[in-house]
Amino acid sequence: MNSTPLHDLALRLREFTAARDWEQFHTPKNLATALVAEAGELAAEFQWLTAAQSNAPDGEQLARIRAEAADVLIYLVRLADKLGIDLLAAAATKIDENERRYPAEKVRGSSKKYNQY
Amino acid sequence: MNSTPLHDLALRLREFTAARDWEQFHTPKNLATALVAEAGELAAEFQWLTAAQSNAPDGEQLARIRAEAADVLIYLVRLADKLGIDLLAAAATKIDENERRYPAEKVRGSSKKYNQY
Amino acid sequence: MNSTPLHDLALRLREFTAARDWEQFHTPKNLATALVAEAGELAAEFQWLTAAQSNAPDGEQLARIRAEAADVLIYLVRLADKLGIDLLAAAATKIDENERRYPAEKVRGSSKKYNQY
Amino acid sequence: MNSTPLHDLALRLREFTAARDWEQFHTPKNLATALVAEAGELAAEFQWLTAAQSNAPDGEQLARIRAEAADVLIYLVRLADKLGIDLLAAAATKIDENERRYPAEKVRGSSKKYNQY
Repeated sequence: MNSTPLHDLALRLREFTAARDWEQFHTPKNLATALVAEAGELAAEFQWLTAAQSNAPDGEQLARIRAEAADVLIYLVRLADKLGIDLLAAAATKIDENERRYPAEKVRGSSKKYNQY
Repeated sequence: MNSTPLHDLALRLREFTAARDWEQFHTPKNLATALVAEAGELAAEFQWLTAAQSNAPDGEQLARIRAEAADVLIYLVRLADKLGIDLLAAAATKIDENERRYPAEKVRGSSKKYNQY
Repeated sequence: MNSTPLHDLALRLREFTAARDWEQFHTPKNLATALVAEAGELAAEFQWLTAAQSNAPDGEQLARIRAEAADVLIYLVRLADKLGIDLLAAAATKIDENERRYPAEKVRGSSKKYNQY
Repeated sequence: MNSTPLHDLALRLREFTAARDWEQFHTPKNLATALVAEAGELAAEFQWLTAAQSNAPDGEQLARIRAEAADVLIYLVRLADKLGIDLLAAAATKIDENERRYPAEKVRGSSKKYNQY
């Protein structure tokens, strides 16, 4: 990972895990399952909200959303670290692809073309 | 967001979205759903693998995992940007809490204490 | 399972799996991951739709939703079959609990009380 | 829905929802999000277990798994009911397709061919 802050986070998580002897649980398979479970908890925070309400969560909701988003990032960084994936480079590659796949002039304002972005 | 690389990614995604007039689709509610769907695709890459196989994906598997991990990061950064969440600060807060909640000497090697980390 | 149609489905899936020697992949852990991945694909069908649009999917959307819902049911029934869970009895127990937990006169029209239903 | 037990469950859930005036929250979009969130909770029960452990959950684990599986079924049945989807017919269609797509003699014992089953 080139990114200093994400790399620092990866290192802190390595230490946290090693200190607890939890490395044995952190297979990429298990981490991916933990990640989707946390992403589900994050989505659950919004499940009964209208679109408008989701734009303006109250303080308690925002605190829960923030904590769930943190869990998602933590497992994503752990997973990437285990497999040697540079997340920022991977995201850049993906956006490059999406720019070619969805030319602005063609897809403007349409969610029709906008599946699995 | 203090982190320059994550902040740069957030800015690039803002531009990508605005150029396509897709801002209308990017409510926090929708982004959280997109995030969990991508996390599901990531987990699907591992679903039939053994723990050992998941530690050593072949080149094609790793490329797919990398692309799905990128999608997760993209939606996570978009969601955080929409709600003004600093992901790195949120992750630091969460790890601080986990260090208090799971003292190394108490939980060492046990997944019993290790629910919903 | 007491339910004849769900039990018949469980039996057909057992045969399908055995004929392909896929039993080895169908651990409860793997099936639960496959289930959440399919649930993510189902949610993805709705991710950019408004609430109103989601009430009236067009023919192609409905066909995809139907197919994804089928996948969710298939993995849920397989998982329950592997662990000896009677899904209909489990659902009845859960609704009994929810009736006690959310008395109609108290929670009417409020999603405040309505977390993790 | 032709299935009497699943149809009965759908009817009971309609009544439960109407009595609480929660119909307003039960758009297909919201129900699909709730479903994937519950599927994530179900997967979380298995996230740190080995394959062998997941085959033999203890009593407390099994009770939690049963309750989460019930939640998944409840939201799946509600979603199908809202959109007029016959879940058992949809599952039968899907298995018919899978039987053609994965001929037993060709895919026997291989998870290579076994993506997104």
